[in-house]
Amino acid sequence: MSASSNTAVSQTALFEFLARMGDNTLILGHRVSEWCGHSPALEEDIALSNTALDLIGQTQLWLALAGEVEGRGRSADNLAYLRDAREFRNVLLVERPNGDFGKTLMRQFLFDAWHFLTLKALCGSTDKRIAEIAEKASKEVAYHLDRSRDLIIRLGDGTAESHRRMQEALDDLWAYTGELFIGDASDTELSVAGIAPEPESLKAAWDELVGETLLEATLQKPADGFMHKGGKRGLHTEHMGFILAELQFLQRAYPGATW
Amino acid sequence: MSASSNTAVSQTALFEFLARMGDNTLILGHRVSEWCGHSPALEEDIALSNTALDLIGQTQLWLALAGEVEGRGRSADNLAYLRDAREFRNVLLVERPNGDFGKTLMRQFLFDAWHFLTLKALCGSTDKRIAEIAEKASKEVAYHLDRSRDLIIRLGDGTAESHRRMQEALDDLWAYTGELFIGDASDTELSVAGIAPEPESLKAAWDELVGETLLEATLQKPADGFMHKGGKRGLHTEHMGFILAELQFLQRAYPGATW
Repeated sequence: MSASSNTAVSQTALFEFLARMGDNTLILGHRVSEWCGHSPALEEDIALSNTALDLIGQTQLWLALAGEVEGRGRSADNLAYLRDAREFRNVLLVERPNGDFGKTLMRQFLFDAWHFLTLKALCGSTDKRIAEIAEKASKEVAYHLDRSRDLIIRLGDGTAESHRRMQEALDDLWAYTGELFIGDASDTELSVAGIAPEPESLKAAWDELVGETLLEATLQKPADGFMHKGGKRGLHTEHMGFILAELQFLQRAYPGATW
Repeated sequence: MSASSNTAVSQTALFEFLARMGDNTLILGHRVSEWCGHSPALEEDIALSNTALDLIGQTQLWLALAGEVEGRGRSADNLAYLRDAREFRNVLLVERPNGDFGKTLMRQFLFDAWHFLTLKALCGSTDKRIAEIAEKASKEVAYHLDRSRDLIIRLGDGTAESHRRMQEALDDLWAYTGELFIGDASDTELSVAGIAPEPESLKAAWDELVGETLLEATLQKPADGFMHKGGKRGLHTEHMGFILAELQFLQRAYPGATW
């Protein structure tokens, strides 16, 4: 299916999908950037800051395309800095507080595994613009995943203290992973058009990747019980408003400010 | 000296003083309000929320008068929600993070003791508008001081754990108390006109009140060494921007919004 046949999918569904991709990377990028200057070691500080920068860079691409698709003249900056919480489409997982270093890494790993599989699938998108962004982003995210996976194993299978913290992080975050694989009508619409995979279709590969890593990390995979959801539809946790207050302060206080 | 003789003091010095009073209560009120729903016991939750409300109420009075004195049409809301960090005049003590319950209480007590003595002096201000606000606020603050003093003693002279936490809080906050008693040219101007006391003039009474309380609380009063300062001149710590981002979000995101 060529890019031109995108006229077959609704602009609304396409915008929704691009906002979800861009909002996930924006909010996670912001969270990770909170570590800048606070990490337990200089190498980790730089690594986390680089991850944050990669994610913000990807946000720029996803949200710029979202604004283009929408056709109402909104730029990536405009979408990032001038929407309020209910208009954001990120999953709840990425807005979880950083907690300790272990929790930040566990959130990163659980997201990276999904992110990597999603981007790999998007490299084959019938929408060339999406395939191009995915191609670029997937190289960065392959590295994020290598890194977070390695640290999960080292800390899970580390000292008694690091093991305990990683298990706590996993138990705490697990209920936020379900939303990554719940599709809705707009996901189906894009999947039928070959633009993006059905979220459910990635679950088996994610389970395998995550399961193997946790096993090697000597961590106990929690049961799939109750799962939080809502972020993809704009229903966020109490943290979202505080994130946006910080993230948007400059453009809110000095509208239209540029460097 | 009658209110009309205020023409003898510069508008700038008077505005500066009123902004300092209002910004102290605004920022401390905001900090204390962060506890709402998170306190260790229901009674404390309600007490802290009431304290926050008192402080915000006092802010309304101080900043409304500041706007009136300034004569540029800025309301209390406008001053609270539309200034950036460098324009705020609160002391650094009130922007310290809440920390644990003990640190919040210690910050409150150290401030309350100064606040109470200041308001008592202001009740005799030659500026009737200031004397009236001080009269009203001092009744509330007498209660704040009773309460924080009582809790400092109970927790300082409590369990080994509560004693340790209170001593840590005291050691951590002490270096932020010096600024309360440092005057500048505008303080002197107001003092000469009988409008407000010289900050230095309150130090002996504060030392006595705080010293007695700490003794009863079995806490070790730190030595008066290096003292942080800058807030009164608009030079704030790294926390101030984050406080304002939260505090001002609504008016920044929805300019002019009313209930």
